Amino acid sequence: MSKQAGYVVGVDIGGSKIFAGVVDEAGNILSRAKRKTLAAEGFEVSLGQIVDCITEAIQTSNIPEEKILAIGLGSPGPLDIEKGIILYTPNLNWKDAPLKDSIEAKFNKPVKVDNDVNTGTLGELVFGAGKGAKDIIGLFVGTGLGGGVIIDGKVLHGFNQNAGELGHIMVNPKGPRCGCGVRGHLEAIASKSGIEKMIRKAIKAGKPTMIQKELEKEKGPVKSNSLAKAYSKGDKIVRKAVKRSARYLGYGVGSFLNIFNPEVVVLGGGIIESFGQEYIDMVIEVAQKNVFPIAIQNVRIVPAALGDDSVILGASVLAFEAYQQAQQKAKK
Amino acid sequence: MSKQAGYVVGVDIGGSKIFAGVVDEAGNILSRAKRKTLAAEGFEVSLGQIVDCITEAIQTSNIPEEKILAIGLGSPGPLDIEKGIILYTPNLNWKDAPLKDSIEAKFNKPVKVDNDVNTGTLGELVFGAGKGAKDIIGLFVGTGLGGGVIIDGKVLHGFNQNAGELGHIMVNPKGPRCGCGVRGHLEAIASKSGIEKMIRKAIKAGKPTMIQKELEKEKGPVKSNSLAKAYSKGDKIVRKAVKRSARYLGYGVGSFLNIFNPEVVVLGGGIIESFGQEYIDMVIEVAQKNVFPIAIQNVRIVPAALGDDSVILGASVLAFEAYQQAQQKAKK
Repeated sequence: MSKQAGYVVGVDIGGSKIFAGVVDEAGNILSRAKRKTLAAEGFEVSLGQIVDCITEAIQTSNIPEEKILAIGLGSPGPLDIEKGIILYTPNLNWKDAPLKDSIEAKFNKPVKVDNDVNTGTLGELVFGAGKGAKDIIGLFVGTGLGGGVIIDGKVLHGFNQNAGELGHIMVNPKGPRCGCGVRGHLEAIASKSGIEKMIRKAIKAGKPTMIQKELEKEKGPVKSNSLAKAYSKGDKIVRKAVKRSARYLGYGVGSFLNIFNPEVVVLGGGIIESFGQEYIDMVIEVAQKNVFPIAIQNVRIVPAALGDDSVILGASVLAFEAYQQAQQKAKK
Repeated sequence: MSKQAGYVVGVDIGGSKIFAGVVDEAGNILSRAKRKTLAAEGFEVSLGQIVDCITEAIQTSNIPEEKILAIGLGSPGPLDIEKGIILYTPNLNWKDAPLKDSIEAKFNKPVKVDNDVNTGTLGELVFGAGKGAKDIIGLFVGTGLGGGVIIDGKVLHGFNQNAGELGHIMVNPKGPRCGCGVRGHLEAIASKSGIEKMIRKAIKAGKPTMIQKELEKEKGPVKSNSLAKAYSKGDKIVRKAVKRSARYLGYGVGSFLNIFNPEVVVLGGGIIESFGQEYIDMVIEVAQKNVFPIAIQNVRIVPAALGDDSVILGASVLAFEAYQQAQQKAKK
């Protein structure tokens, strides 16, 4: 991205909330807006929410709308990146949703869309923990395990635009079943869901843990902070499950280093945020033992630096790209 | 690679033999030469063999040496691609060997070097099973398990130029020990060495197999063809080990599809050549069960088409690239 004087809007579309911000070329977020996604009500309703959210972000920024160059959006996938269509998503009640065209029509500005994890990884590359690097792997450990790959500054999309599913590699054919249905994927063990599943199994087997009550009471997924609290208090069951998560993430990182030999591996998401450097150190220790020395030499394995802003900021990079592409197209 | 009228030399440097050929821009091999690598005698001796081999290939092609535009070489790694230095290799008694500079000095032509597996994958992309594609994964299953990754026509090298080690991903932490020292890598199970190790273990446990005598007699690795013969005769021990190899390679291919979502996966090497489509079908069946449907949709998983010529032909592509880069440099 060459420097481009001006402002864009970056949008982070999540399963429950939409965040938008006006962002300048240096990655400063000048304004913020938030809306509910209302995903269950279908794409048209969600689209209205997205448009409202973008409009509010522009208004509160005090930047005149005509000075906004473009709009970028990070969305759950899978999607057709070029056409900007969200094909379907487990979290949103959308199907073949023409996100790019709809937003372009509403605001009459260039629009670029990518999936949320790629977008967050791009944000970390340009403005966060990967600043200055060209090749980066992003691993976001939350309820699931999302991955993003950027090679020579370009997001890896692949033949059907479905590359970068780093949580869905086989790490143990006899391991637990993954959200995608496959037994033994990395996500099934290392994600928060994988940790929770192991703890629930221990509870069923009559083993004591201090988060038993919370797990019995809560219908939704366990909170990363609750796990971190039990972990730090020495809860054996929780410690075992979290250590297994870190060990397998270490195997995964070792594999990704041998596969991609990136310059930076960024670790983000709820589990990383709640457990911090102690967890990352476990990951690094295992990765080091499972990799060619040359493939980890001088490689930075670091926590994500942008927190919840990574997708908005990555989306702003997409927006500047969309603007430049539109400019080049206009020249021809 | 844009079309370039003219001829280059492609060289395939192996642990025991060197092959060279004069190649035109359409991938026709006009002449061939062969030498022993004499690797144990050090780089200077091997260099003499390489120079002789290139010289003979040029002479027998009847193309005047001044019409040879450039030279490309595929070599065992790891290496510094830009400088063309082979850092060290388990198969050759070389250390920090300045291959590129030495060949440039001898022939006064542009030279480009890459590792043999990347080079073979490039050959398959441009002239073989991957023709017409841009994104390709090469997996070569022999004594080891070599990998090459090409994205948008460019070989993936990574930060320390050590990307693409696809045999060295964790597939089972309790699996057998890999040549690289790690327990549970794909190579340790799926390669011919992995198959042989499993059979030897069965023999030790007193289980009967028709290749027992051959294994006891032979000091070197078992031949792929011997395995294939025993397999087709219904040898239970051999069938079990080979099926395990195919199953794990299928897990690996599933992971690589989710990671890269390539257009083509090319399977080559001694095991693939000896077992053919039956083995590939087992790999595809497992991969299909372990991947997002969108990541395998319309993806070709096919046997390598160039056999032993893949490295010479890939090296010819490197040579044409070297020539073009030299031309561009001269223009500036």
